[in-house]
Amino acid sequence: MNEIAYRIAHHLLRIGAIRFNFEDPFVWTSGLKAPVYCDNRMSLSHVELRGLVKDGYIAVIKDNFPDVEVIVAVATGGIPQGALVADKLGLPLTYIRDKRKDCGLNKVVEGYFEKGQKAIIFEDNISTGGSCLRAYEELKKEDIEILGIVAAFSYGFPMEIEKICRLEVISTFSVIQDVALKEGYITEEENNKLNEWRENPKNYKK
Amino acid sequence: MNEIAYRIAHHLLRIGAIRFNFEDPFVWTSGLKAPVYCDNRMSLSHVELRGLVKDGYIAVIKDNFPDVEVIVAVATGGIPQGALVADKLGLPLTYIRDKRKDCGLNKVVEGYFEKGQKAIIFEDNISTGGSCLRAYEELKKEDIEILGIVAAFSYGFPMEIEKICRLEVISTFSVIQDVALKEGYITEEENNKLNEWRENPKNYKK
Repeated sequence: MNEIAYRIAHHLLRIGAIRFNFEDPFVWTSGLKAPVYCDNRMSLSHVELRGLVKDGYIAVIKDNFPDVEVIVAVATGGIPQGALVADKLGLPLTYIRDKRKDCGLNKVVEGYFEKGQKAIIFEDNISTGGSCLRAYEELKKEDIEILGIVAAFSYGFPMEIEKICRLEVISTFSVIQDVALKEGYITEEENNKLNEWRENPKNYKK
Repeated sequence: MNEIAYRIAHHLLRIGAIRFNFEDPFVWTSGLKAPVYCDNRMSLSHVELRGLVKDGYIAVIKDNFPDVEVIVAVATGGIPQGALVADKLGLPLTYIRDKRKDCGLNKVVEGYFEKGQKAIIFEDNISTGGSCLRAYEELKKEDIEILGIVAAFSYGFPMEIEKICRLEVISTFSVIQDVALKEGYITEEENNKLNEWRENPKNYKK
């Protein structure tokens, strides 16, 4: 698992999917200001990396959730790899919208599932875990049994969702920092800044 | 191709992904009132049907756009099958959001592409073609060469987009009507109502 995590980090850095900006931080979906941004979507356009990430997800699922019966991808980020993994494992795919569709059948969970089915929530990156928490709560209302959450990587911030649901990831941000430092994408000083930021993510200082 | 279209229609009806309601019409994303609704997402949860649809897309692409270099899926509907097809054909996947992401890197086309690359726009169902037209215009701004649009099916309404861009589909609504009538999902009278509605979709009368 570790080897695949390092290979993924290497490629994400190589293709510019992970970017650092210590002077002019990025603003994430959650509103957090951060000196790093990971554009996981770019990995979808690189066939080799896309395959590595798929293999990473599959290994995590086989190791941790071998009884899974349905994959619930979190829209939009979780959908493409969710589809690839569902296809490879021969599992049904559903996805959960970030808001209820206000036309058609007004669904929040798209696709077909049965009450009591064993599901995993499928995400790309996890920062504050907010979208997973929302997905978890929506799925609880639908009487789905949630085995856990599978994600590409987590930044390792403290998260509410981890108190109530198991979370398994292909990689962590520590691995990305390791590779970025070793391969010269960041300096020792910048690596220290990243460590400080991770300890106190709500208050990034240049 | 025709055989696969009939098999897909059979399964979509069997699993309830296509629903008819002549008394209390559905309201589509485009605002159109319609006596039919096709929930293509349900096909993602049925492994056999999902595979059939994937095969249908691949046949359309190989027959019509063999030179394609990148797939641009229209979010959200086009993404899951877009990922499966890109994976099978070993092609890069990108996707186009319905609105620009207002955080991170503010992208409208997610993923990586090069100027001048030969792309297809990848959709699930097409009704008025509005989302394809929007995708087409955004991609033109990015200097992508658009070979055409590939969709699961079209209702056969007149569309602006068809005047400026080639559109190829796995199936049409006529096939679905044929199968629905033959398999007893609708009566002859209801089939006539569907024909009337298709001729004048903006003015559905019970």
